[in-house]
Amino acid sequence: MKNIYFIGIGLIGGSLAKDIKQQNPNVVIHGISRKDSTLEEALDLGLIDKKATLDDIVKADLVIVSIPVDATVKLLPAILDKISDNALVIDAGSTKQAICKVVENHPKRRNFLAAHPIAGTEHSGPSAAISGLFEGKTNIICEVEKTAFKLQEKALEIFKSLGMRIRYMNPEAHDKHIAYVSHLSHISSFMLGKTVIEKEKNERDIFDMAGSGFASTVRLAKSSPEMWTPIFKQNKDNVIETLNEYINNLTHFKELMKKDDFEAIYNEMKDTNHIKDILNGIN
Amino acid sequence: MKNIYFIGIGLIGGSLAKDIKQQNPNVVIHGISRKDSTLEEALDLGLIDKKATLDDIVKADLVIVSIPVDATVKLLPAILDKISDNALVIDAGSTKQAICKVVENHPKRRNFLAAHPIAGTEHSGPSAAISGLFEGKTNIICEVEKTAFKLQEKALEIFKSLGMRIRYMNPEAHDKHIAYVSHLSHISSFMLGKTVIEKEKNERDIFDMAGSGFASTVRLAKSSPEMWTPIFKQNKDNVIETLNEYINNLTHFKELMKKDDFEAIYNEMKDTNHIKDILNGIN
Repeated sequence: MKNIYFIGIGLIGGSLAKDIKQQNPNVVIHGISRKDSTLEEALDLGLIDKKATLDDIVKADLVIVSIPVDATVKLLPAILDKISDNALVIDAGSTKQAICKVVENHPKRRNFLAAHPIAGTEHSGPSAAISGLFEGKTNIICEVEKTAFKLQEKALEIFKSLGMRIRYMNPEAHDKHIAYVSHLSHISSFMLGKTVIEKEKNERDIFDMAGSGFASTVRLAKSSPEMWTPIFKQNKDNVIETLNEYINNLTHFKELMKKDDFEAIYNEMKDTNHIKDILNGIN
Repeated sequence: MKNIYFIGIGLIGGSLAKDIKQQNPNVVIHGISRKDSTLEEALDLGLIDKKATLDDIVKADLVIVSIPVDATVKLLPAILDKISDNALVIDAGSTKQAICKVVENHPKRRNFLAAHPIAGTEHSGPSAAISGLFEGKTNIICEVEKTAFKLQEKALEIFKSLGMRIRYMNPEAHDKHIAYVSHLSHISSFMLGKTVIEKEKNERDIFDMAGSGFASTVRLAKSSPEMWTPIFKQNKDNVIETLNEYINNLTHFKELMKKDDFEAIYNEMKDTNHIKDILNGIN
């Protein structure tokens, strides 16, 4: 492995580049981005060694795609068209069905591995890249059997060197589960932020009265709309289902309050406290 | 100030006790609790110097009440009955209307200061007490004019020594604002936890797929139902209003998704990103 091309060099791409470069000081990290300013920033930050364009990826041993999922769907077939026969392409998108679908019949399908490293922060862009982001995190791999065995091995070696735990799943199951544990959290957080901002016209009031609890609950409302809009679009049906259930639960809670059934309110919370045990170990 | 009595010695009381003792090594910290096991734990942890009962507070220079808000409403008049003429009583409850109301005509109203230190974690009990919890946090004081001036001064001195910023507010405004920035966050988090637990019967799936974003958004769902049920009860009307607005915003978001209006979805998120600037400095 000599030449690695990163298409997208923000939070995820940049963090992967940092760790891979540290593990393999001899590889050359090439960056590709729509915006030259992003590449300049990535160069300044030392995330990439060289700027490149899509046409250069014929020289790639490995291509890592971490761009908004609509851009991945659009670009992935062309990426596979351009690479050499031995190259491996890995994506890191938060949806997997649409991405797997668009290359299902591509002649180079066996050069592609569909992955979703469950890691991130609410920040974005090259300056958000951090070392060790993937240590101890789960990486979900979809349709592993469709990737050439030698390339699977290569990918697993990299993920192992980053400290990731691997879980295999089909794209349908991935998109369904991830709607609950990730996509819904983002919407609940965005709408909480919206509700408070709308109400509290005096921002000083929010700042003065909000504690660390509020800050934690709305943290995801700082996330990038460029990244999240296409995720919700591609996972529309699952996300709408989670929203229906979430809204029903909130409405039920409200009705219990209206009826002064505070014993039931207590039980709702007591039962959910159980999340403590489930989350032990997640940061 | 020689004898301080803590009624309730959990997360808030215990953390206050730690900091006050550190600032004033000569004071004697007395602990009062419904459960003897709590007092034993507080003694073991060094949060209190001595166990006490309600009848002892006649000897108090300062009484700090940090128990569930329904217990505060029930107990506060009796506490004021028992103290000496020069003692100061401070509460730390998350609601202020019901608490101020219950003592409005009490002959010792001037010995009481209604406060709400906006600080905490999702943990509870004596073992949750930590040093420095209040450093840089806001403390909301209600109806300050109803507290004797000398006792106001005494309270402010303590809050200042803990590093707290003071904000004055009437109880109605407090309960209305805090419903948005604190009470609603707790419900959104509890119901998010509930929605995911109900759906993901296989808890291993939640654990494997949930990232730090989910953990952050459901953190408050670990909070104590004993503490939160009476808060929701006392602030029922305000909390129901926030829930209505939150549910409306979620429903609107869902409708936009159903209509495939992803430009509007993008704008919803973009506008809410502004929370970033508001929150800078919290935590």
